[in-house]
Amino acid sequence: VIHSAATHRSRAEQKSHTRQALLDAALDLLRDRGLSGLGLREVTRAAGITPAAFYRHFPGIPELGVALVEQSLGQLRTAARAVRAGLTGGDAVIAESMRLLWSETRAHPDTLRFIARERHGGVAPVRTAIAGELRRFADELAEDLRDGTVETAGYLAAWPAEDVRMATMLIVDHMVRTVAALLDVLGDPDAEAEAVALATAQLRLIEHGCRAWPAAS
Amino acid sequence: VIHSAATHRSRAEQKSHTRQALLDAALDLLRDRGLSGLGLREVTRAAGITPAAFYRHFPGIPELGVALVEQSLGQLRTAARAVRAGLTGGDAVIAESMRLLWSETRAHPDTLRFIARERHGGVAPVRTAIAGELRRFADELAEDLRDGTVETAGYLAAWPAEDVRMATMLIVDHMVRTVAALLDVLGDPDAEAEAVALATAQLRLIEHGCRAWPAAS
Repeated sequence: VIHSAATHRSRAEQKSHTRQALLDAALDLLRDRGLSGLGLREVTRAAGITPAAFYRHFPGIPELGVALVEQSLGQLRTAARAVRAGLTGGDAVIAESMRLLWSETRAHPDTLRFIARERHGGVAPVRTAIAGELRRFADELAEDLRDGTVETAGYLAAWPAEDVRMATMLIVDHMVRTVAALLDVLGDPDAEAEAVALATAQLRLIEHGCRAWPAAS
Repeated sequence: VIHSAATHRSRAEQKSHTRQALLDAALDLLRDRGLSGLGLREVTRAAGITPAAFYRHFPGIPELGVALVEQSLGQLRTAARAVRAGLTGGDAVIAESMRLLWSETRAHPDTLRFIARERHGGVAPVRTAIAGELRRFADELAEDLRDGTVETAGYLAAWPAEDVRMATMLIVDHMVRTVAALLDVLGDPDAEAEAVALATAQLRLIEHGCRAWPAAS
């Protein structure tokens, strides 16, 4: 009787539903601690399934962590790219990228706290997955800057690829730091605005550095 | 009989010795996990004292964490300042500061991993302590840059205080990120050198941004 609604779903739909329930339950449990301290049984209990059923979805907790990384950072990457695609001016790109980070942090604090924390956390496969997603983030940004999607950054097309990578990695690290700073003050609108203003000025400083870079190096 | 060596020490010396043993044992246990998952009993067991004796040193695990923060970041702050005091050129300050970060990360990997991890970890008083130490770090750097200790940064004396703070916070965040990147590849000398080279270029990019900043803002 309890599963009457579920019987109308296809098996694949139900499986994907349970998988998402496991991801959501894990995120909820991880609010104040690290993934290395998370037990499989507490996740299945919170998701309302048996421990044995967990293995239909993930081989273990580390793989569940990797799935959380791919889901959250994959979405953010796509959204960041969409923001850049519609704009041409450097200041507008900075302002709109910051606005995106702010709204995403407000909308998904638990997910982004998980990323900020596990980037240096105790679970190696999750650290590797986060590093990989952030590298992809930097690569896509480098592409957009070099191919003229962001018009005012066209001068970067003349840079050696490794210099572009150096700059975009700095920007991506700054992005992660900005999310973490926002998480620290979430719920205090003035402090949030202050953190965004500080991060925006820092990103503009980095942009100034980029413009001054080729001439001086 | 077991404590025969200790009986020759003063009570204060012995107390400080046990306190340090607790800090060392905790760091050792924290290599692959977060402070929020650390139990008081496992720390005292590893340090060779009774659980009750723990409370002569710390009210609880969070306070032990705060002591770890103060000890490690306090030392690093002092060392960073000493490096800056002997130098005048911007490139030399960048190179020597990077050399210090590299050697400190090699010498104290467990301590610095603890800092990188707990900066966004689940224990609020420890997060607060790390944020406070890093703010002090940025303030001291701002002082040195503005008062001419670093001669080539003398132009910063004309900046509004909040702009100096903005730039030094960016530098301190970059420093923390550099340590974390080094920790990820520790033991692989080529990868370590590559991480340092990348971080050095990024710090120079930030310096270029600082030089270009007042004219353009």
